[in-house]
Amino acid sequence: MTVHPAHTRIEIGDLAVPFTRVALTNGETFDRYCTSGPGSDPEVGLAPLRAGWIEERGDVTSYDGRETQLLDNGRSAVRRGAARGEWRGERRRPRRGRNVTQMAYARAGMVTEEMRYVAVREGCDVELVRSEVAAGRAIIPANVNHPESEPMIIGRRFLVKVNANIGNSAVTSSIAEEVDKLTHAITWGADTVMDLSTGEDIHTTREWIIRNSPVPIGTVPIYQALEKVNGEADKLSWEVFRDTVIEQCEQGVDYMTIHAGVLLRYVPLTAQRVTGIVSRGGSIMAGWCLAHHEENFLYTHFDELCEIFRQYDVSFSLGDGLRPGATADANDEAQLAELRTLAELTTRAWEHDVQVMVEGPGHVPLNLVEENVRLQQEWCHGAPFYTLGPLATDIAPGYDHITSAIGAATIAMHGTAMLCYVTPKEHLGLPNRDDVKTGVITYKLAAHSADVAKGHPGARDWDDALSRARFEFRWRDQFALSLDPVTAESFHDETLPAENAKTAHFCSMCGPKFCSMRISQDVRERFGSDLSAEDAALGMKEKSAEFLELGASVYVEPSAG
Amino acid sequence: MTVHPAHTRIEIGDLAVPFTRVALTNGETFDRYCTSGPGSDPEVGLAPLRAGWIEERGDVTSYDGRETQLLDNGRSAVRRGAARGEWRGERRRPRRGRNVTQMAYARAGMVTEEMRYVAVREGCDVELVRSEVAAGRAIIPANVNHPESEPMIIGRRFLVKVNANIGNSAVTSSIAEEVDKLTHAITWGADTVMDLSTGEDIHTTREWIIRNSPVPIGTVPIYQALEKVNGEADKLSWEVFRDTVIEQCEQGVDYMTIHAGVLLRYVPLTAQRVTGIVSRGGSIMAGWCLAHHEENFLYTHFDELCEIFRQYDVSFSLGDGLRPGATADANDEAQLAELRTLAELTTRAWEHDVQVMVEGPGHVPLNLVEENVRLQQEWCHGAPFYTLGPLATDIAPGYDHITSAIGAATIAMHGTAMLCYVTPKEHLGLPNRDDVKTGVITYKLAAHSADVAKGHPGARDWDDALSRARFEFRWRDQFALSLDPVTAESFHDETLPAENAKTAHFCSMCGPKFCSMRISQDVRERFGSDLSAEDAALGMKEKSAEFLELGASVYVEPSAG
Repeated sequence: MTVHPAHTRIEIGDLAVPFTRVALTNGETFDRYCTSGPGSDPEVGLAPLRAGWIEERGDVTSYDGRETQLLDNGRSAVRRGAARGEWRGERRRPRRGRNVTQMAYARAGMVTEEMRYVAVREGCDVELVRSEVAAGRAIIPANVNHPESEPMIIGRRFLVKVNANIGNSAVTSSIAEEVDKLTHAITWGADTVMDLSTGEDIHTTREWIIRNSPVPIGTVPIYQALEKVNGEADKLSWEVFRDTVIEQCEQGVDYMTIHAGVLLRYVPLTAQRVTGIVSRGGSIMAGWCLAHHEENFLYTHFDELCEIFRQYDVSFSLGDGLRPGATADANDEAQLAELRTLAELTTRAWEHDVQVMVEGPGHVPLNLVEENVRLQQEWCHGAPFYTLGPLATDIAPGYDHITSAIGAATIAMHGTAMLCYVTPKEHLGLPNRDDVKTGVITYKLAAHSADVAKGHPGARDWDDALSRARFEFRWRDQFALSLDPVTAESFHDETLPAENAKTAHFCSMCGPKFCSMRISQDVRERFGSDLSAEDAALGMKEKSAEFLELGASVYVEPSAG
Repeated sequence: MTVHPAHTRIEIGDLAVPFTRVALTNGETFDRYCTSGPGSDPEVGLAPLRAGWIEERGDVTSYDGRETQLLDNGRSAVRRGAARGEWRGERRRPRRGRNVTQMAYARAGMVTEEMRYVAVREGCDVELVRSEVAAGRAIIPANVNHPESEPMIIGRRFLVKVNANIGNSAVTSSIAEEVDKLTHAITWGADTVMDLSTGEDIHTTREWIIRNSPVPIGTVPIYQALEKVNGEADKLSWEVFRDTVIEQCEQGVDYMTIHAGVLLRYVPLTAQRVTGIVSRGGSIMAGWCLAHHEENFLYTHFDELCEIFRQYDVSFSLGDGLRPGATADANDEAQLAELRTLAELTTRAWEHDVQVMVEGPGHVPLNLVEENVRLQQEWCHGAPFYTLGPLATDIAPGYDHITSAIGAATIAMHGTAMLCYVTPKEHLGLPNRDDVKTGVITYKLAAHSADVAKGHPGARDWDDALSRARFEFRWRDQFALSLDPVTAESFHDETLPAENAKTAHFCSMCGPKFCSMRISQDVRERFGSDLSAEDAALGMKEKSAEFLELGASVYVEPSAG
């Protein structure tokens, strides 16, 4: 049986930072960035890693917080007159006059434990972390009420990150199922997880997810707010929304998608599109604007929102409610008008020391992908870009993890900091556990392709380690170094199940009698690895004789057994 | 049940050209390029569509051809003293002094039926076809001994094509299985198929495949030649190889991979690579060169090879035997030295009026992808580029259809004419039927993404038709327009199996009560599709009242039932 990677922690002073340590059969080890956390009993939750750090800064205080209401868990909880599976974490807020955001600390020149932790994970200098956060070019989403989280950073100078969406809907699923999806997503490499629940027990599901999550949790609070007004967008109000945001801030949500760029005057720009408005949040706000003929309350109350986010160090994910839902609509007036507004809001949030990332499309033909990230980076002063794909074509429902991985790798190569995964079920249905895994693995490989293309320090080491294992027929190492060792090994075993085939110097493509890898190993053995082409040409006549003498065989007999 | 697309033929004068006609529920139809052919009984084979055209040109004659030998079917046929399932197609060759290649015709200003057929399939002017073939910038692989083929074209001015590899190995499979894989591959969209068999019954398997194939068939004849010399590369000779090539030309192989660029002096350039030589053909020739200390016989006999290819109109696929097998080795000296030689050979083949495409990598980080096609196009005077992926990262065995689709879409966008698919089993095992389908669909979407990115005339029509169906909740049309209608429908049904959910104006992502698509349809209905932003802003107050009056509902009740 193949030895699968072990999770380990590297002790740096007082910090224990997680890595996945792959022990190779040649005695070497290879350490990979690890998202899975230490593992938790869902009923108990994770230990609050950051609680001590937060306490020690002495700038927050516990308080009772908002009282949970039945409606927080949806209309059926109201009907039942009771909620299910309630759980209440500790609520913290800043002491008067204190600003507890990582951005505020960074701007004040302070290096937090979160920044040190991130620097170890990323293998970079902590000053890079601090200065990028201070400049707004990176964020560390870390709500003071989510002390269970292992700090991570989102920014173009750092490893490209991947978000996985989970969440129940009116149609399906249970709390336990969603916690299981969370665990599954981070096991396979999700760097953040968004809980997009719209069904029953929204509040409680979120609490369970946060208490069990070592990665930052994002939400789209307008979804819950809409549930609270019986799904009628015109009944939404700033007050209902504000209350919902506070509810979620207190639970520990690390970043929230806010569709404050869907302005009244932009809505008609979508009328001529092939697919209009496809963002749920965008269409909710468009519906509200139209019904009231008023400006989007998320826009008009944006500074108040900043004040709330600042209390808990919640980061903005400025939603692209007018993103294109078809390649035909890419980079159009509606999309770019909204992006201009998101740029304005980025600056406003920064005035409050609130961290910001900006969301991006969607569906974009490959030739228009780079322009998306270029404009966003220019207009938004380098705030991290967080894109959904984009899908490079619309013709392959059922394979949109792939159509979008193509766009995602490309946009990340050009500077997108985080990619929101797309599963094979996109446009068709709700992702199950397997879809979550497929989506995460697909996006991890897209993100890593971008890291390699950007020449990110150390990124290609992983490729090289795997390729060397491949070249040297260290099959077990090849599996262990794979993004998905289980699948790699099972595919190998389908053709060559025997245990000794995993140590054999051949594979099923050429069979045991001929192997191209083997020949080039012969080339290397005969010419050495330090030979110039000229030396080689001169010395080749002798080598040729030697080669023939040694058997000249391109047949390699399988290992005994 | 969803109505699946029907295969149809468009009659243009005396030509009946195949299309996949999708009948939409709104009464429209959408025609797609179709590769599946009319369907055949494997025991009987396809009708020889091109036989009449070839006869009418009056420049070929039937002859007996080379006698089939037992060794053609491998050493076990020799042991048995008999071959299995023999089948012999008609053998044609040119009358004395005639040149029957499409390139020769094109250069002579002649428009063949093959060119006219291709022009209808591509929806372009036939003069574009003729002139591109004449210039060597496109090829129509169409061996006179494969009259069953439906002509197609490979070139950067045309739709990006996809090749699927099939073939048995020493480890597995039967003739029937390979014919079934062929049918499966073209059903899902493979534009050409390469038979890479190395196991038993090579000759006969190939004959069955060709007689049943409406798409061009490619091979790598060195594989069979190696079998004939008991797998010992140093025993290979020009004579054995030449005889094998003639055997395959007479059977009707349309293009052959020839590793004539693996020169003796380039072999040592691979010694310092992470993964040396990974091409089978490349390593066979490298092994031969080293054993004999002689120049590659494919290079020294290249003009003779051109003369043979010219007889049957077989196209060269100049193999990249030194392609990188790891991202670390991309665009290195060995790879580019070989490409220079392939450029030289391209020109030499053209002197014989023989059609040529040039093969490319492999494993290439995204930032180096464009350079590959740019250099190939420059050095090889625009001869079509035919690449294997490339894989953008090495870390995801089991998902290399995806790591490579990322590179494939990118390289095709920059001008690669045909993409060789990669299946999920790459590096791990032999693809089964399902892997063939996954590989083909993945590459079709990559190729189409490139067509869209290139602004290929009409390419985006397909995306737009599907997106319109999606926006208008024409679920059945969305399925039918998908690259894989079966998977799209089954994914939808997993969440919402009820028949009426396929006509409902909602989907499982938001559930029946809220739907963003529905809202933007409301926007369109209320503002019309010809409204400017200014008009809209002015008129919006009234519209707002109207909207509220009409219910202002973002809830949409599910269709009855």
